[in-house]
Amino acid sequence: MGIVVQKYGGSSVATAEHIKAVAGRVGRARESGLDIVVVVSAMGKTTDRLLRLADEVSREPSPREIDQLLATGEEQSVALLAMALHDRGVPAVSLTGPQAGFRITGRYGSGVISEIQPKRIHEYLGEGQAVIVAGFQGMNALGDVMTLGRGGSDTTAVALAAALEAERCEIYTDVDGIYTADPRIVPEARRIPVISSEEMAEMSWRGAKVMHPRAVELGALYGVEIHVRSSFDETPGTIIKGGKHLEHLETRETVAGIVHDLDVSRITLNDIKTGPGTMSRIFTPLAERGISVDVIVENGVPGGAADVAFTVTRGNFAEARKLAEEVASSLGGEVEGEEDLGKVSVVGTGMLNRPGYAAKMFASLGEAGIPIRMVSTSEIQVTCVVPTDRVEEAVRRLHKDFELEERDV
Amino acid sequence: MGIVVQKYGGSSVATAEHIKAVAGRVGRARESGLDIVVVVSAMGKTTDRLLRLADEVSREPSPREIDQLLATGEEQSVALLAMALHDRGVPAVSLTGPQAGFRITGRYGSGVISEIQPKRIHEYLGEGQAVIVAGFQGMNALGDVMTLGRGGSDTTAVALAAALEAERCEIYTDVDGIYTADPRIVPEARRIPVISSEEMAEMSWRGAKVMHPRAVELGALYGVEIHVRSSFDETPGTIIKGGKHLEHLETRETVAGIVHDLDVSRITLNDIKTGPGTMSRIFTPLAERGISVDVIVENGVPGGAADVAFTVTRGNFAEARKLAEEVASSLGGEVEGEEDLGKVSVVGTGMLNRPGYAAKMFASLGEAGIPIRMVSTSEIQVTCVVPTDRVEEAVRRLHKDFELEERDV
Repeated sequence: MGIVVQKYGGSSVATAEHIKAVAGRVGRARESGLDIVVVVSAMGKTTDRLLRLADEVSREPSPREIDQLLATGEEQSVALLAMALHDRGVPAVSLTGPQAGFRITGRYGSGVISEIQPKRIHEYLGEGQAVIVAGFQGMNALGDVMTLGRGGSDTTAVALAAALEAERCEIYTDVDGIYTADPRIVPEARRIPVISSEEMAEMSWRGAKVMHPRAVELGALYGVEIHVRSSFDETPGTIIKGGKHLEHLETRETVAGIVHDLDVSRITLNDIKTGPGTMSRIFTPLAERGISVDVIVENGVPGGAADVAFTVTRGNFAEARKLAEEVASSLGGEVEGEEDLGKVSVVGTGMLNRPGYAAKMFASLGEAGIPIRMVSTSEIQVTCVVPTDRVEEAVRRLHKDFELEERDV
Repeated sequence: MGIVVQKYGGSSVATAEHIKAVAGRVGRARESGLDIVVVVSAMGKTTDRLLRLADEVSREPSPREIDQLLATGEEQSVALLAMALHDRGVPAVSLTGPQAGFRITGRYGSGVISEIQPKRIHEYLGEGQAVIVAGFQGMNALGDVMTLGRGGSDTTAVALAAALEAERCEIYTDVDGIYTADPRIVPEARRIPVISSEEMAEMSWRGAKVMHPRAVELGALYGVEIHVRSSFDETPGTIIKGGKHLEHLETRETVAGIVHDLDVSRITLNDIKTGPGTMSRIFTPLAERGISVDVIVENGVPGGAADVAFTVTRGNFAEARKLAEEVASSLGGEVEGEEDLGKVSVVGTGMLNRPGYAAKMFASLGEAGIPIRMVSTSEIQVTCVVPTDRVEEAVRRLHKDFELEERDV
């Protein structure tokens, strides 16, 4: 019998009423004859509440203890959802990440799934039970609980769908799919019925909040078909079709959508002496502190002075700038920073081999008088860093100029 | 190096500020050169809040899922206390019950400790760390978390003190020791500096809320010295000295204290036909539903009709009455019940071989016009079941008539 993995985020299980509604949906899905595995996040703002408590008792909470603390959020959700299912007469059992067979390596707070041993899950499914699995967590080599970091519940669900060879992974969220742009900014934005994993991964990395990009990439790697749907209604949502080779997907002649991110700041090291290993000297200290760097631009001549610029989230700006200043002073350069920036990206496989898209994007922003601070491109996206207060205007402009509201996506 | 096990209840870790205060106390205890193991309950009303959520999603929550849910309360406390200790520069590590090596058997919600494998605890102590252990929980044979039931954190602490051969087990609570009677009812009540485990166990079973009787009995069995202290001040508290043979304890010539319980109801099966197995037919169905029966009184003649009465808590009254009615009707008898009762007990090893104490108790209550509904006696206690609204008066009267306010206890 086929297996479907469903994942419900924190807003879908925020209250007892929400949990009962999810139980109703799981019960109906089960009536279709499929085996159901459900991955759940912590209720509503539980994770934030626990992090606040940690900040109250400690100036610098240890990552191991943070993981021990945060894992309880999902453990509560799974138990409550199993109870709600029992109450509807649906046999169900809850499993924590360690119980579900998730083996995790890496660092506390940002663990990586090394293996899933789904023996217990298969046994329970064999008994006709719905299996409810805590997202975002697993067991490390010490036998301790370790979390996958924020957004990890999406990754849990997709990894589980891959390990169980599920027919599909359904991600339930508070929006009804992926749009050509954020509908709060562009009212004409349209829901995308089918999108490739590759495009979806780019959209996620570039700012689309609906799914965690790590989960999308995992789905692409293992060919998991992902359905993004609203947990509040029955609309069809967006299907993310897997793999790098999309024989069955119609080739689009245009971009898939415009995505943006309002939380960007830039740090530039000016006039530094470069040589082999310079980039590593700049970025290793950031990586050691767990600071993610997004866009990186280097501009220099061999053996001469160069400028290196990169972006981080605003929360990491002060620390990243301090680290950059230490490196810059040892390389004879200076650091300059800009805190209030954002990103806007045009994403789509249709852009492959069509260099005109970047030019069209620059022209569109230029006509609107929006200054471009940095540019980053790849085969399927062009990203421009612009001032925060111009991001929304840029999104609307690009959505219009790329004619996304007029065509069937 | 000697080990001390400290246990802090829910009210001692109710808020971030409370947790920081506990961290201060643990830090100071460590300065004395002892290895410290701390057992913690869930924060304040966490367990009640989680049970309320369970009731909201399910009419009859499954015991396994309740355990999965409730265990998270203690898991949060241990992580937060470890963080607060780090913040004071005290090396510390938190362990859930399963991580700490607690192996549990029995039923979900009322597990029994079968074994403690304290390897990890010893390793961490060897590294100079304070070890913070989640009370009330352990792992069953399936690898699932199972709780010991309410009051289980006391049992966790005492069992751990026994397994680690600790010098003593310190129970921190919101009162500063064991009193000759409840000071809220008898202002003249005195703190008992030293009490035998046997007396303490009786006082706990008979209504003293300070320590769970199960934990006291475990301490008696393994000879663990237990110190009951306030977590809010530095007063010496009460020392519970272990074992049945109290060579080192002065033999008291009087009762240790008066204890009471306001939550008692009585069910009586009148005129039932008795024979071999009758008592089992009455009480097995109650045990199967997990209903604890306290005082049992049987009054009958061989082969003739008999009356059997027993007490349960008010919360179990309706269900117990229903079960009793099923049995009574098959035995030709009838059921009568009384819901608003309480118990008052006189406890003390000094009562051994001194039958006059029961008579003195009956006289004291009789003079006050307090009706006695049931009586239960053992070597070290006499308990009378009386109407709820007469319990406090009975406690004051007995405390005075046994001259507890005047003598050095």
